[in-house]
Amino acid sequence: METWDAITARRATKEYDTRPLADTDLERILEAARRAPSSSNNQRWDFVLIRNRGQLERISKVWPGAAHIANAAAAVGLVAPFSDDLRLTASINYDLGQAAMSMMIAAADLGIGSRTASVQDYALAAEVLRLPDDRRLTWLLGLGYPGDRPLKPIKNPARKPLEEIVHHDRW
Amino acid sequence: METWDAITARRATKEYDTRPLADTDLERILEAARRAPSSSNNQRWDFVLIRNRGQLERISKVWPGAAHIANAAAAVGLVAPFSDDLRLTASINYDLGQAAMSMMIAAADLGIGSRTASVQDYALAAEVLRLPDDRRLTWLLGLGYPGDRPLKPIKNPARKPLEEIVHHDRW
Repeated sequence: METWDAITARRATKEYDTRPLADTDLERILEAARRAPSSSNNQRWDFVLIRNRGQLERISKVWPGAAHIANAAAAVGLVAPFSDDLRLTASINYDLGQAAMSMMIAAADLGIGSRTASVQDYALAAEVLRLPDDRRLTWLLGLGYPGDRPLKPIKNPARKPLEEIVHHDRW
Repeated sequence: METWDAITARRATKEYDTRPLADTDLERILEAARRAPSSSNNQRWDFVLIRNRGQLERISKVWPGAAHIANAAAAVGLVAPFSDDLRLTASINYDLGQAAMSMMIAAADLGIGSRTASVQDYALAAEVLRLPDDRRLTWLLGLGYPGDRPLKPIKNPARKPLEEIVHHDRW
């Protein structure tokens, strides 16, 4: 698919159909994450690919807004070192956002929908995924073919108009 | 360009040639940012498109690692509300990372290179961009045609191998 079509077809998908995802497609999505840029190329990330239905159901309890993960074809847990330093937190999460968006666009290119979920119950997440003490499940990405309608380029996305958010040379 | 080619051709570009960027290309890159997902679709972002050479030079002083911005064809300043709350900071920066990656892939699709710079001197950034008190220049994205060689898909990116960063169902 053309890049612009993938960028404009991506939308947050929380209803998934039951078709499983091909191993090669999942590998491509994870490869897109691997290639994302990061601060000083530090790659402070690990990705837990969750396909086991029991694991998907368990991990969907980490936040009320993560319920859709239980029905996803697969999920990617974005795991990173935890820090209580504000600047480091900003940097790690900016990098994770880049990796997530790379996965979402790669997925859209394959007709696969995606949606991020926050994590609130870090202890449960650590237990379900058996994470080391120094790592935290920071975000979850649900993946699957959309249950409602196939992805196709969206003409008018629900966003503020460009004129409202873009400034020229200064605010 | 095919999506996968754009994803794999993107690389951090810090040397730019002198060709200016077309207005339509810059608009497409900003449109990619506008379409990025964000927490509850809150769109806690503004984008300052900097093309004025004096402004590019001034804004390049906000961090030693931002020097390449002075020679970029253009830059996008990612502006967001500042918070000293750790969870909010994580969320805002995850969203900004998604918007940035969307711009970088849209740029790569057009043969345009990009590279993020951190910001350290927030006061200088606020002065140069005349930001409101409740906003902060959080990241800078330099844009331009690469000065060294055109973008093309990279076979072996300098990244940890997939096996090292991907876990299956649990750590």
